[in-house]
Amino acid sequence: MEGKRIKVGITHGDINGIGYEVILKTFSDPAMLELCTPVIYGSPKVAAYHRKAMDIPANFSIVNTAADVQDGRVNVVNCINEELKVELSKPTPEAGKAAVAALEKAVEEYQEGLFDVLVAAPANKQSVQADSSGFSGHGAFLQERVGGGRKALTVLVKRDFRMALATEDIPVREIPKTLTKELLAEKIMAFHRSLKVDFGIDSPRIAVLGLNPHAGDDGLTGTEEKEVIAPALSEMVAKGIQCFGPYPADGLIGSGSFSRFDGILAMYHDQGMIPFKTLAMEDGVNFTAGLPVVCSAPVHGTAYDIAGKGIASENSFRQAVYLAIDVFRNRVLEKEISARPLRKQYYEKKDDSDKLKQLDVPEED
Amino acid sequence: MEGKRIKVGITHGDINGIGYEVILKTFSDPAMLELCTPVIYGSPKVAAYHRKAMDIPANFSIVNTAADVQDGRVNVVNCINEELKVELSKPTPEAGKAAVAALEKAVEEYQEGLFDVLVAAPANKQSVQADSSGFSGHGAFLQERVGGGRKALTVLVKRDFRMALATEDIPVREIPKTLTKELLAEKIMAFHRSLKVDFGIDSPRIAVLGLNPHAGDDGLTGTEEKEVIAPALSEMVAKGIQCFGPYPADGLIGSGSFSRFDGILAMYHDQGMIPFKTLAMEDGVNFTAGLPVVCSAPVHGTAYDIAGKGIASENSFRQAVYLAIDVFRNRVLEKEISARPLRKQYYEKKDDSDKLKQLDVPEED
Repeated sequence: MEGKRIKVGITHGDINGIGYEVILKTFSDPAMLELCTPVIYGSPKVAAYHRKAMDIPANFSIVNTAADVQDGRVNVVNCINEELKVELSKPTPEAGKAAVAALEKAVEEYQEGLFDVLVAAPANKQSVQADSSGFSGHGAFLQERVGGGRKALTVLVKRDFRMALATEDIPVREIPKTLTKELLAEKIMAFHRSLKVDFGIDSPRIAVLGLNPHAGDDGLTGTEEKEVIAPALSEMVAKGIQCFGPYPADGLIGSGSFSRFDGILAMYHDQGMIPFKTLAMEDGVNFTAGLPVVCSAPVHGTAYDIAGKGIASENSFRQAVYLAIDVFRNRVLEKEISARPLRKQYYEKKDDSDKLKQLDVPEED
Repeated sequence: MEGKRIKVGITHGDINGIGYEVILKTFSDPAMLELCTPVIYGSPKVAAYHRKAMDIPANFSIVNTAADVQDGRVNVVNCINEELKVELSKPTPEAGKAAVAALEKAVEEYQEGLFDVLVAAPANKQSVQADSSGFSGHGAFLQERVGGGRKALTVLVKRDFRMALATEDIPVREIPKTLTKELLAEKIMAFHRSLKVDFGIDSPRIAVLGLNPHAGDDGLTGTEEKEVIAPALSEMVAKGIQCFGPYPADGLIGSGSFSRFDGILAMYHDQGMIPFKTLAMEDGVNFTAGLPVVCSAPVHGTAYDIAGKGIASENSFRQAVYLAIDVFRNRVLEKEISARPLRKQYYEKKDDSDKLKQLDVPEED
């Protein structure tokens, strides 16, 4: 690893939002180019448009493929052949198409091994769906394309605050029936594995939130805690995974007690996203765990309200790049550490999961 | 009003939690006794127990009724005849019974006009239910006993951050069916009225949160926004109430944009309580709006984990006392201002709601 810069593939996301602004601002800092070599899957013309509009001091080189990237430069692979019109702050089908084209090209080159980690600038789900219905976020997209049968887990990260989501973009009315013991077991195992392998925490402690107010208040305000969540926790504990709860979400987070845990598992989107954004909107990262590919994204969206104004903070995007690199390195380290364990030669070495096997945790896939 | 101290009735809540600690600490500050005259509905013996256990420098006088209180003193009305055992950090039926007895006595004396505002120390719902099933918080209790047919609305307050709850302690699976257009209209009107009358905001702006992730994402992640929330908002706007939304909860709160509004209406308990506690656990107040009686409470609970240790912060309780006094004064002011309006003599003057009538907002009751 040493001496070789990590190649960071970047999808440009929505061309009408703050995507190019945060990408270019991040890499206008020369120190970032010492750390890694970025390759943007997008459009050189659109990049130039945003650079000029906001007078961002960033240069880039146009390359045909990530195989041709130059270290010390921002590289752009053109993924769009036709003319592309930027309409700042608008969700256009054209922008949706361009976001998908960049993702497709990035996935293709990832499969060819042309870069190491992927950082996704925010896309607009509705624009994308106009072109490619069924798109429900980068995690789901990557799971389908390069998941190798494994399942994605969203982990929101700000330093030691790591919040995973048991269910994601589904209506509230569907949460109770979606939240089965099996799903929770799967999510807890995936989270445990990610905390170990991606974050290098040897024996992670996971706090699991309740679904209902006051975590069901012993049955007064809901039964899922007793019927679904607690049994799933018992099962996980029996497998040697340290998980605790279910805790009332407002109390655990409001009191600050969440910091005693390496990870928090929220039952649904808003339960995790509301406190996470409240505490980490400025520099939080949305990390897609569970897949072979390392993928991160800023926690903010397209931010149409400030697109093109030059006032967007690149902090969250920069942290997303740092995190992707950290996770990539942790995975490499984990692989090295566990490559020749004593008394384990009879295990088939196919991935970085053998430490988990010691805990008798079944593989998810 | 001038020269007359406001009488603050205080229910002692759970005797095994931090209730007495925060009450006594609050009133060990002589400045508080300049501001108001507290009368605790509880037990002098239990008060003495906590005072001694934590060495809190607070004196109190035992009185038979709030009619006998002395200004400049902490007054305690004994509401419990039998011997009462304090079992720190435990939810006992005895404690539940004592919490209810204090509430009953306070309600009785409130009806006799013996004090002005009520501040409730935290009770344990399960202890209380062991004695008196169906108890689901102070707001619901007061609504039933002294609501005069009006409905309680929980408003969480920290300075200019005011978060009301459209639904409260109900299971998540019941939220979608509980959240009707009628309920939302009722809650928005009650919130609007409270912001005007209780908080003295002449033309309040209310932000309404969505129910589903991304506020339904134009139908992709839920339909209640289009079918229920937006129509309720249109109806309110037609009545001259300034309300906006529905907004994605995580975005509005995480971005800080909520501060542009005088009030935020959350659709369910955790959606409001999680961000509120995250931002205001230390000094937030739980205010019960909508009822004739002014009632507030600290945002924290019984806090069994730190009961009897002397380390609980009285900040939230003190703020609850301040808020109750502020609201009481605002209501008096509002009554005076609207007592003899021009061209309005033909309205029957029965309460402080006549300004709302100008907006053509129907009364709730």
